[in-house]
Amino acid sequence: MNKLIVIKIGGNVIDDPAALKRFLTAFASLPGSKLLVHGGGKVATQVAGKLGIETTMVEGRRITDQPMLDVVTMVYGGLVNKQIVAKLQALDVNAIGITGADAGTILAHKRPVKDIDYGMVGDIEEVNSGQIQFFLRQDLTPVFAPITYSAAGDLLNTNADTMASAIAVDMVLHNEVTLVYCFEKKGVLANPEDDNSVIAELTPAVYAEYKAAGTINKGMIPKLDNAFRALEKGVAKVIICHADDVCSAVEQGAGTTLKLS
Amino acid sequence: MNKLIVIKIGGNVIDDPAALKRFLTAFASLPGSKLLVHGGGKVATQVAGKLGIETTMVEGRRITDQPMLDVVTMVYGGLVNKQIVAKLQALDVNAIGITGADAGTILAHKRPVKDIDYGMVGDIEEVNSGQIQFFLRQDLTPVFAPITYSAAGDLLNTNADTMASAIAVDMVLHNEVTLVYCFEKKGVLANPEDDNSVIAELTPAVYAEYKAAGTINKGMIPKLDNAFRALEKGVAKVIICHADDVCSAVEQGAGTTLKLS
Repeated sequence: MNKLIVIKIGGNVIDDPAALKRFLTAFASLPGSKLLVHGGGKVATQVAGKLGIETTMVEGRRITDQPMLDVVTMVYGGLVNKQIVAKLQALDVNAIGITGADAGTILAHKRPVKDIDYGMVGDIEEVNSGQIQFFLRQDLTPVFAPITYSAAGDLLNTNADTMASAIAVDMVLHNEVTLVYCFEKKGVLANPEDDNSVIAELTPAVYAEYKAAGTINKGMIPKLDNAFRALEKGVAKVIICHADDVCSAVEQGAGTTLKLS
Repeated sequence: MNKLIVIKIGGNVIDDPAALKRFLTAFASLPGSKLLVHGGGKVATQVAGKLGIETTMVEGRRITDQPMLDVVTMVYGGLVNKQIVAKLQALDVNAIGITGADAGTILAHKRPVKDIDYGMVGDIEEVNSGQIQFFLRQDLTPVFAPITYSAAGDLLNTNADTMASAIAVDMVLHNEVTLVYCFEKKGVLANPEDDNSVIAELTPAVYAEYKAAGTINKGMIPKLDNAFRALEKGVAKVIICHADDVCSAVEQGAGTTLKLS
């Protein structure tokens, strides 16, 4: 079966040009089929500020009214996405930068209002894995900005971690999938104070213990919940590592590898 | 031979949501293979202004320093492009919004400095018509933002008229191509004061007369020069018309049709 690596990079890499360059060079060197999902970083907040649009975050999620959606579409879908694509092209990776709206790759619906009105935020309905596979077969490397669309033709801001997980799960139809979350630490830490206390393997049972002890904190919980769900749905391997370690994580097991048992 | 319609819309359509909606509905109804190239409109200048970046135009062309390139990438490559794509998806057109950097579709180089330093502006070197044809064969409708890239991995601001013409010319390899420039008039006018004085057919000889008489003005000259070059290089038909008339122009000859003789 064809192997596919789905990698998500977050804002900390995007906000640091030197780190982004290192990451993209490493990404370009990974053999075989791969695709990238990127987050946004601070640029959206900075641009919004200069445009006089206030940023409101609830539990790490951006409240997205129409003006903020426009900013997100500009910054994630335009600036960040196209800069990554042009840099990958120069590294001989035939990248194609898209949102979920492009080629109908990821359909979503506006998140229903419960306690919080997140605004123009999308919950994923369907990943068109056939379309993504068709790009991969042509040696194209999709680079996804964290934006989806609704059947009514609205763009929707969508969490990049969730998007990477949803893509990985759907691509299981065609591939043996490895999902890699790159972030600012070397992996999931047993001791948040010690950057070298990386947990090499994490099972749901061990995860539950760390959660109960409070060692694994708020921001990590949705990331790990997403990651374990991906494993349950057939993703072969999930790795959480530093962006600088992406090659050694994929090839030699650096970072934290999640396992079902 | 397969027929392909290449349509360019300018800023006047993009700046007017109602006009854009009418155009996209008409575009969606056109049968067969088609692709869209869009300009930018005033949003880039507005966003640049709010971000404290000054806009300098020389003979209708935007001087593009790095901060302005970032704005253009955000607004053209992000906001405008993705809004069009999402709206086309809702109209059952499987649109894919790209720049020249995506899938390596349009390679350019930075314009050499002669009298004027245009900055990060691209002159097109090569259109990858095979890649574009491959999208069309999969019933995808490419929507191009007027941005290209260099081999060194820089994004470059590129005139949308020139881009449409270059794409049309290269697609001649695979298709019988009609190139349509939509703008704010009903066609090329014999009398600039009379919106109904549309010249139904324009040959190089007649064009030369109108140019000599000063009837055809500055902004139209590069557009028409581009258009005649496209005909010389094998494009079957070039039409200049109002965005509202795109269907009748393609199907019944509204607007101005350019002919070599």
